[in-house]
Amino acid sequence: MSAGVDMARSDRVAAALAERELDGLLVTALFNVRWMTGFTGSNGLAVVSPGADGTRRFLTDFRYLSQADQQLDDRWQRDIRTDLLVAAAEGLAPGRIGFDDAQLSVREFARLEKAVPDGVELVAAGGLVEELRAIKDDAELEKLRAAAKLADEAFEEVVGAGIVGRTERDVALDLEVAMRRRGAEGASFAPIVAAGTHGALPHASPRDVPIPPDTLVVIDWGAMLDGYASDCTRTVATGPLDPRDRAIYDTVLAAQEAALAAVTAGPTGKEVDAVAREVIDAAGHAEHFGHGLGHGVGLEVHEGPRLSKQGETPLAAGHVVTVEPGIYVPGAVGVRIEDLVVVTEDGHEVLSSLPKGLRTVA
Amino acid sequence: MSAGVDMARSDRVAAALAERELDGLLVTALFNVRWMTGFTGSNGLAVVSPGADGTRRFLTDFRYLSQADQQLDDRWQRDIRTDLLVAAAEGLAPGRIGFDDAQLSVREFARLEKAVPDGVELVAAGGLVEELRAIKDDAELEKLRAAAKLADEAFEEVVGAGIVGRTERDVALDLEVAMRRRGAEGASFAPIVAAGTHGALPHASPRDVPIPPDTLVVIDWGAMLDGYASDCTRTVATGPLDPRDRAIYDTVLAAQEAALAAVTAGPTGKEVDAVAREVIDAAGHAEHFGHGLGHGVGLEVHEGPRLSKQGETPLAAGHVVTVEPGIYVPGAVGVRIEDLVVVTEDGHEVLSSLPKGLRTVA
Repeated sequence: MSAGVDMARSDRVAAALAERELDGLLVTALFNVRWMTGFTGSNGLAVVSPGADGTRRFLTDFRYLSQADQQLDDRWQRDIRTDLLVAAAEGLAPGRIGFDDAQLSVREFARLEKAVPDGVELVAAGGLVEELRAIKDDAELEKLRAAAKLADEAFEEVVGAGIVGRTERDVALDLEVAMRRRGAEGASFAPIVAAGTHGALPHASPRDVPIPPDTLVVIDWGAMLDGYASDCTRTVATGPLDPRDRAIYDTVLAAQEAALAAVTAGPTGKEVDAVAREVIDAAGHAEHFGHGLGHGVGLEVHEGPRLSKQGETPLAAGHVVTVEPGIYVPGAVGVRIEDLVVVTEDGHEVLSSLPKGLRTVA
Repeated sequence: MSAGVDMARSDRVAAALAERELDGLLVTALFNVRWMTGFTGSNGLAVVSPGADGTRRFLTDFRYLSQADQQLDDRWQRDIRTDLLVAAAEGLAPGRIGFDDAQLSVREFARLEKAVPDGVELVAAGGLVEELRAIKDDAELEKLRAAAKLADEAFEEVVGAGIVGRTERDVALDLEVAMRRRGAEGASFAPIVAAGTHGALPHASPRDVPIPPDTLVVIDWGAMLDGYASDCTRTVATGPLDPRDRAIYDTVLAAQEAALAAVTAGPTGKEVDAVAREVIDAAGHAEHFGHGLGHGVGLEVHEGPRLSKQGETPLAAGHVVTVEPGIYVPGAVGVRIEDLVVVTEDGHEVLSSLPKGLRTVA
């Protein structure tokens, strides 16, 4: 079901400016520029002012002249410059102008401050575009679905062919290559393949050691396709498990399914996190679930909103988040199960297609 | 021949602080932290004060407790914290404290300013560590040699097996995979494979189109191995060339060899750049060589010093730079030939092993 919004992205930014009593916004963070303008090059900058007919200015360098013409619609006044920041600064009208303080360096800010005309007040406004970006429109949801599908197919190809006796590093590399061969720009992060006790590290790096039989293997991977990331985790068995490991798997799966069922527009990230945490706590593993339940995914593989003890944002239709509880018993074993999920008005849509029942691969 | 320096890296930083009348340096940029401390994790921060027995403080989070113990020597006082920046700030002694202004965001700087004790004056000092990093020691040169060798072997495997009829994108991906299979962390940048007229774009993205026979193909690739980057370009023919293309190749090769011969401790980057430019200008292609001759390479694939019209830094023993002139005739053809080179007291050592005479591959 559609969770998209119809308003042009730059109009959403313009509306948010008015709310914050800003007279303009200088957008320097590339992900924000890309989201707002459609420009995919490596050097670009945008200026927006409130109102549907307010400023929509885009600056890039000569390398991207024709690309900018192709990618931006006609509302954007395009400008080819060498020093984008100074050119944009000099063109600002007096007033309160927001900027990406979470991204702009102190050095660049000093250049900016020097170049703005009298009457411009620079106001830290990092997060403004990111908050809007957290709500995906239909075009973005299509891209996220495609990225998740591609990643799942790569998993089937690589993991389905067997992993016992292969090194964690080889399996991780094969996953990445399989995603690339299917057209992904790359992995959305370095894949994790972690067998046995190594799986007890939530961010384990793949090792040059063969994957043994009769253990659990945590596999966390995602694709970057058409600029959008996917993120998924499955934990598979490589043979019969001892009852302790099997019980841990079942607890994580129960926690994942309970939390997933709670995903809908309305509750805060904190509330959904608590649902998974309760299941894991009740099984006696409270201290073995040391990370948040999930995070937003879009142009970046980690963005807002957070599903964690700190998640104060209520979930809203169009949010795309991971639901990924885990249990990590140091020196023993780790299990994580993760789906990528679109929040809708009355529930959610799961983008991950792979079954979550315990799967044994040779 | 060795161009290395013997002094411990943090002592080189401490000496540079004294020169700039700084009482300490807060190092937040991860490449700088890695270079100075040996720490390879994703979250770390260091504080150095002048003198061989001055402060050597390192902060990271709980995930890297044992890794920090393994990677840092005992001179570093290690500290596990949640908010590294605030913890480091609170521990600063009064005085002039430099910080990485080119890397630190405006938002992080605001947190830093708020947390420092009275009497601390924060001074923009970005570039201080980068300048020291530009001079490689023996351990670094070994890593750069290994990265270049690995990349050359991958090229032989992939390009040597034939490229005609394969897509640019496939060849680029195979290069990357071949480097990874040999143990590289990854490509040091997205490889460029650009045939025919596409080669006339210096930063061409590989396309999904087959490489035709009887043309020139620019291939620019590098490996990231043990944290260090390599960078190399070869332009190969896929069959007999028309005389115009052949002449352009010969001009670029002559320019590359002339500039390479000028690489030694002493001249500025600008002077070496001019040597290549003169050869290309004399052949009537002045306007077709639109980028600088080269750049430093190390932990980052683009670092100091610059070999370009803006290159004011004199080359010094231990600098590692690319020498990569090119001719790009829009709509027609492009040629670039690039070696990775160590500057020595009395000349240079070329790290790229592949021959530069025109090579034809099927």
